Amino acid sequence: MRILDQRALPGRVRFLECRTVDQLCDAIRSLAIRGAPALGAAGAFGVALAARNLTTKREVRVAANRIGRARPTAVNLRRGVDAALAAFEAGGPAAALAAAQQLAADDVARNRALGTHGLALVPVRARVLTHCHTGSLACVGYGTALGVLRAASEQRRRPRVFVDETRPLLQGARLTMWELGRLGIDATLLPDGAAASLMAQRAIDLVLVGADRIAANGDVANKIGTYALAVCARAHQIPFYVAAPVSTIDLACPSGDVIPIEQRDPAEVTHVGRSQIAPAGVAVHNPAFDVTPARLVTALVTEAGIARPPYRRSLPAHVRRAAEGVTPAS
Amino acid sequence: MRILDQRALPGRVRFLECRTVDQLCDAIRSLAIRGAPALGAAGAFGVALAARNLTTKREVRVAANRIGRARPTAVNLRRGVDAALAAFEAGGPAAALAAAQQLAADDVARNRALGTHGLALVPVRARVLTHCHTGSLACVGYGTALGVLRAASEQRRRPRVFVDETRPLLQGARLTMWELGRLGIDATLLPDGAAASLMAQRAIDLVLVGADRIAANGDVANKIGTYALAVCARAHQIPFYVAAPVSTIDLACPSGDVIPIEQRDPAEVTHVGRSQIAPAGVAVHNPAFDVTPARLVTALVTEAGIARPPYRRSLPAHVRRAAEGVTPAS
Repeated sequence: MRILDQRALPGRVRFLECRTVDQLCDAIRSLAIRGAPALGAAGAFGVALAARNLTTKREVRVAANRIGRARPTAVNLRRGVDAALAAFEAGGPAAALAAAQQLAADDVARNRALGTHGLALVPVRARVLTHCHTGSLACVGYGTALGVLRAASEQRRRPRVFVDETRPLLQGARLTMWELGRLGIDATLLPDGAAASLMAQRAIDLVLVGADRIAANGDVANKIGTYALAVCARAHQIPFYVAAPVSTIDLACPSGDVIPIEQRDPAEVTHVGRSQIAPAGVAVHNPAFDVTPARLVTALVTEAGIARPPYRRSLPAHVRRAAEGVTPAS
Repeated sequence: MRILDQRALPGRVRFLECRTVDQLCDAIRSLAIRGAPALGAAGAFGVALAARNLTTKREVRVAANRIGRARPTAVNLRRGVDAALAAFEAGGPAAALAAAQQLAADDVARNRALGTHGLALVPVRARVLTHCHTGSLACVGYGTALGVLRAASEQRRRPRVFVDETRPLLQGARLTMWELGRLGIDATLLPDGAAASLMAQRAIDLVLVGADRIAANGDVANKIGTYALAVCARAHQIPFYVAAPVSTIDLACPSGDVIPIEQRDPAEVTHVGRSQIAPAGVAVHNPAFDVTPARLVTALVTEAGIARPPYRRSLPAHVRRAAEGVTPAS
């Protein structure tokens, strides 16, 4: 597997070769590859890799399980693994690879449909606040929340995007700013703590973020810092939208309370690049995600359209429509 | 003037010698010295320095004006400059120096009184969220918001402090964690975006921050990111307290709307240490401060006691009491 190493961006465009499941798990855990839809594809291709490298069905199943657990919050990773593993059980290594390739092709088509549906939420010259990175690097192709902005830009709506840098791993600064720059979309970088005062100054028309997992009740797990934006958006009566493929919806998960939240390495907070920014050995709280309750989510955009509250009713309909194939927006 | 260079912490304890007004203005603008009360003392000693170096009264007045404008938001800087300049006009260089020394000694006494008054707000084993740095480095001595926690710790209340790293300049990570560590107070560092989810998990009992300027109506200008904390604290019904010396209250300033907010160098956001974390040349929004409206401030602690709403009535009383001298807490 050849993977664009997102850790090296924006400084360098570097590719990693993963020849073993161990190497892939390392790449996933270290965030060389990240973003919920991209993890889905990585999981599926990982199973195809295991099916080619390993000799027994049992070994492949064990390897698939290891890949699926490399990051616990994103449901897509487990979904991609399960899809390729089911194909492998039915048709062997070639079927696993075909399933992974199908999932990847499908992801791009679904992203484009999602982007087109999302247009309904983005007025001309909208000032949009976003968090983390939800562009093509996070997916196989087009992007989710950033795909909506890309579609808006292609329709000459000239969105103006305000990008939270997204501490600790700075995906907004490193990846979103890089991708928006390449797309020629107007973008301004800010520290996460500056978003609320922009809202107070009436400088933001809407908030648009991605998701790592969406529970059946509409609760959204996404990058740490998302929940504060949702609380502040509500306090300023600014719509808070979530864009994510249907594969992110987990109807088996009743609410955000039961979504596991990964605690990551303290060094992500105490160091930036080669600089140590905190005294050695301090205690650190470094959750990768937080949960935004459904009551703060104005609408959810998927490739099946726009879901509005009550989500217990609208989300199952999206899952059904997506299973029937991509729904082109009108 | 010999100044502890806060930019080098926590890595190194380094002192700067400022022999000219230019050197002092550079030290202030580059945040080698920072924190509203510390800036007050720096302003006063800066005028004493100018009075010693320069020959005409007019030159000293021009220099004083330059120091006072080195940072526009903190009212204390201008106050310190004005106090020493008035002394200089009346009694020459020696009087300016005496005024600066008096202001510095007074600051420590006022901080201690503030800390003691603030005890009423900090229950035993309280879990306290704080932002930026308000410890002894930010003042001449004891600290403001951190002074309250220090007083609580001295009274064996064992506060547990959660410290926002405070992007972009990481005063929480670099300075607050360093100072709390030296004081033996339990402290945990977190990215700014993680504070709201701690509140949602009922892991925070109160928020306690400092202030750079407090308007007559109780609006509080403080480090960028403070306002989001206040909005989230209110949403979770957590008290939001501000600790600041009376010198931070500006009764001539009717509300937060007219407090000038300094925009700082984009490089503070695009670079950390020697690492570039965003593509070159991107647009950056980097305000140093935000304004928290009075309606979100549960109470204000000063050396004159605890001020509660309506602040238009309680703040003038604090200013009067402080002018009569430090009020020891009962």
